[in-house]
Amino acid sequence: MIIPVIQKENMRKVGCFMKIVRCRVTDRVFYGVVEEEAVKEIEDTPFSGISYTSNVYPLSDVQVLAPVMPSKILALALNYASHIRGSPKPTKPEPFFKTPSSVVGLGESIILPKGAETVQEEAELVVVIGRKCRKASRAQAMEYVLGYTCGNDVSAREWQRGDVQWWRAKSSDTFSPIGPYIVTDVDSSQLNIWARVNGREVQHCNTSELLFDVPTLISFISDVVTLEPGDLVFTGTSGVPAQIKNGDVVEVEIEGIGVLSNPVVEE
Amino acid sequence: MIIPVIQKENMRKVGCFMKIVRCRVTDRVFYGVVEEEAVKEIEDTPFSGISYTSNVYPLSDVQVLAPVMPSKILALALNYASHIRGSPKPTKPEPFFKTPSSVVGLGESIILPKGAETVQEEAELVVVIGRKCRKASRAQAMEYVLGYTCGNDVSAREWQRGDVQWWRAKSSDTFSPIGPYIVTDVDSSQLNIWARVNGREVQHCNTSELLFDVPTLISFISDVVTLEPGDLVFTGTSGVPAQIKNGDVVEVEIEGIGVLSNPVVEE
Repeated sequence: MIIPVIQKENMRKVGCFMKIVRCRVTDRVFYGVVEEEAVKEIEDTPFSGISYTSNVYPLSDVQVLAPVMPSKILALALNYASHIRGSPKPTKPEPFFKTPSSVVGLGESIILPKGAETVQEEAELVVVIGRKCRKASRAQAMEYVLGYTCGNDVSAREWQRGDVQWWRAKSSDTFSPIGPYIVTDVDSSQLNIWARVNGREVQHCNTSELLFDVPTLISFISDVVTLEPGDLVFTGTSGVPAQIKNGDVVEVEIEGIGVLSNPVVEE
Repeated sequence: MIIPVIQKENMRKVGCFMKIVRCRVTDRVFYGVVEEEAVKEIEDTPFSGISYTSNVYPLSDVQVLAPVMPSKILALALNYASHIRGSPKPTKPEPFFKTPSSVVGLGESIILPKGAETVQEEAELVVVIGRKCRKASRAQAMEYVLGYTCGNDVSAREWQRGDVQWWRAKSSDTFSPIGPYIVTDVDSSQLNIWARVNGREVQHCNTSELLFDVPTLISFISDVVTLEPGDLVFTGTSGVPAQIKNGDVVEVEIEGIGVLSNPVVEE
């Protein structure tokens, strides 16, 4: 199968489905498009359009990295009724920041910091911004989306409750696993999301349950905070997450996107 | 006066005082060292050591930019007794994130977003991290500091009180003015800081009043969140800030560092 050179503007309009991977072969890091069991290298980054080099690698020969190193990450609190149980529904989106230094990719360890006590996974659909976005209307918002990936908004509950703000509770090193791929052109309004700990299902929802949907989030955030290419929006978590412990393996799976798996280790 | 090529390791150890500027001449952006009324261009960035090119410009011919584009910004809540009046003193530092897209430099406008109501300045000493810092002890912490600049932690009070987290309250676009220079080798434990609105003094403190000093902050933060070169730590504000309004000019002055001046405009 041959995919032609497609500029990003067209990609959005024609609704071309692609799985984009950031990966390493020996000591070279590059972006590619995954097709079946091959990775076709692209020039530069997917944020400047998709243009292939002549390099193709077996998927099994590349090390899959976090799909992007964002300049900022926003995440949503209180965006599924099943997670806020009993409390009143929020009247507007409630974002907070996670910091880019907390990002890890597929297979990298989630490290439980000393003193963090109860740490939980939060399985979430993550929006990857494709181009600079300021004051997008809800109607325009999807024009700024490159695609989606799986995210785990790892959360230290005692720190979340006891600190003035959620800095270390949500952004300790390794607390933002993302990946494995950026998938373009999926319908973000009806995707199943699962979290599993050691194979046991601990969260399951559908993005149709989001209290504030993806276009609303992008519009609300970009009204005051400019989003840049590669920036991420974690859209919120559902239900009741589980405690994760030394030796566990946590998976976040999103229908049509893939499985993000990370081992858990103690500091 | 001739300053020789000095590598950063030496700079720290010999305690060499420098004023580092990031600036633009026509469409070229570069770092330089300010000596009296001249800017001596340096190779690369100050984070990789100071090595001069042969270019020297009159200071009046360069456009001074925000001195750094950080990968992350931490700021401190509740770090001066005069600001927390009446409340119990915190038992540990209380950081929060400001996002890099909110950074502006000397002379750039602070834009009051629609709906933000009461917006105030917060004059603060800002630490500029010089090299990657993870789990620094309090004793080691100063080894990771490149220098200091002036910062204004602009704050929208109704959003700060009404939102779950301080995202837009502290990180709306233009809410993090910094500059004008990074000054190396000042004693951060005894600096006077002033805020003025239209020339009227509205805040005045000395960094000797910090509840948690610079080494304590760096050690506490880097225990769980890795700091990168160019990252910033806003150390907190004192007293009672003033409301800033359309047409005002806000200044943050720190002894030995300089004056950061920004006009205020409505969206």
